[in-house]
Amino acid sequence: MEMKTEFIELSTRGDTDIIDITERVQSIVSQEGFREGSASVFAIGSTGGITTVEYEPGLVNSDLPRLFDTLAPYGEHYAHHNTWGDDNGSSHVRASLLGCAMTVPFIDGKLLLGTWQQIVFIDFDTRPRKRRISVQLAGIKG
Amino acid sequence: MEMKTEFIELSTRGDTDIIDITERVQSIVSQEGFREGSASVFAIGSTGGITTVEYEPGLVNSDLPRLFDTLAPYGEHYAHHNTWGDDNGSSHVRASLLGCAMTVPFIDGKLLLGTWQQIVFIDFDTRPRKRRISVQLAGIKG
Amino acid sequence: MEMKTEFIELSTRGDTDIIDITERVQSIVSQEGFREGSASVFAIGSTGGITTVEYEPGLVNSDLPRLFDTLAPYGEHYAHHNTWGDDNGSSHVRASLLGCAMTVPFIDGKLLLGTWQQIVFIDFDTRPRKRRISVQLAGIKG
Repeated sequence: MEMKTEFIELSTRGDTDIIDITERVQSIVSQEGFREGSASVFAIGSTGGITTVEYEPGLVNSDLPRLFDTLAPYGEHYAHHNTWGDDNGSSHVRASLLGCAMTVPFIDGKLLLGTWQQIVFIDFDTRPRKRRISVQLAGIKG
Repeated sequence: MEMKTEFIELSTRGDTDIIDITERVQSIVSQEGFREGSASVFAIGSTGGITTVEYEPGLVNSDLPRLFDTLAPYGEHYAHHNTWGDDNGSSHVRASLLGCAMTVPFIDGKLLLGTWQQIVFIDFDTRPRKRRISVQLAGIKG
Repeated sequence: MEMKTEFIELSTRGDTDIIDITERVQSIVSQEGFREGSASVFAIGSTGGITTVEYEPGLVNSDLPRLFDTLAPYGEHYAHHNTWGDDNGSSHVRASLLGCAMTVPFIDGKLLLGTWQQIVFIDFDTRPRKRRISVQLAGIKG
């Protein structure tokens, strides 16, 4: 088994911006020449998350943001705001709830995703951000 | 280190059906002769999830389904329904929230789970489904 | 690639006690002499979870516990209580929702975390507990 660590750089709008990173993860697998193994995707920072979703406008622009708005509303008071004079307490708790890491398998050099299943980074912060996501491959080449 | 990718095939009832897959994951570890390593479990598709739970009827048939019904009710309108004329918007957002992947360690050929901790696949879709779950082992044999 | 499995032992207060385990995970990476790879953190047991959070008092003592109290209140009835005469149904469903596993990458022997991002174990149980968390390293030494 061999290992390789690469990075994806993103500019986001913030505010539960959901970005499809599937092709970028797949490109790293392909370029590095791995055949069978896993891509461990990890979002660096405490207000972003990683999951999979069917990347269509209804879910991505409405339903999934609405879920997070309901679970942890932006407008409420968070004790975090007292610490930093910030407004992104909801961003932090959403990110902790979702989780910032996911390990996705591949065989024959292809990610083992369903047809309607995309890997996404979600930026929960309350402003546009530059983001760095690590993609660590472990597996067999050739 | 060596790697092996296997699959579990399931028929589910849908509707937040929670299925214990612990023994099937353990069997793959045992059959492949791995001693120390990890089993990365990944549910292919965008309306299923993976987690652990104490697999007893109260949690599995009542409490955990009720949690997801409360967080993302079936009966509400989801923009996803407009996209496909479908009724499973709640299934998609539940699956994205829970996540479809988990890496479980093992030593001495045994999964490192608590006595009351089972690995489960949850089918959030609104109808019975055939499912495929990948189980990728990475570790040391013998 | 090489592999090593270690353990962290914790005493918790229970009741959504959130414990920063970053330094302990980093110590294992450093002591074992790994340079590039991943640390797969897994909480053994069905009432604990693993995630990352900015470890500051507002989020850790107020906001994140309040989120879980809202999503799965302690005071409600859970069918799980009928099974064991127990009071921790809310603990179980919170743990299943959050998940008990996370794979964190490292390069140059350092975990790839943001400055304000710590790895935490959350004890959702309703009483103090002794806990065991496995930390499995896979990667390249030297």
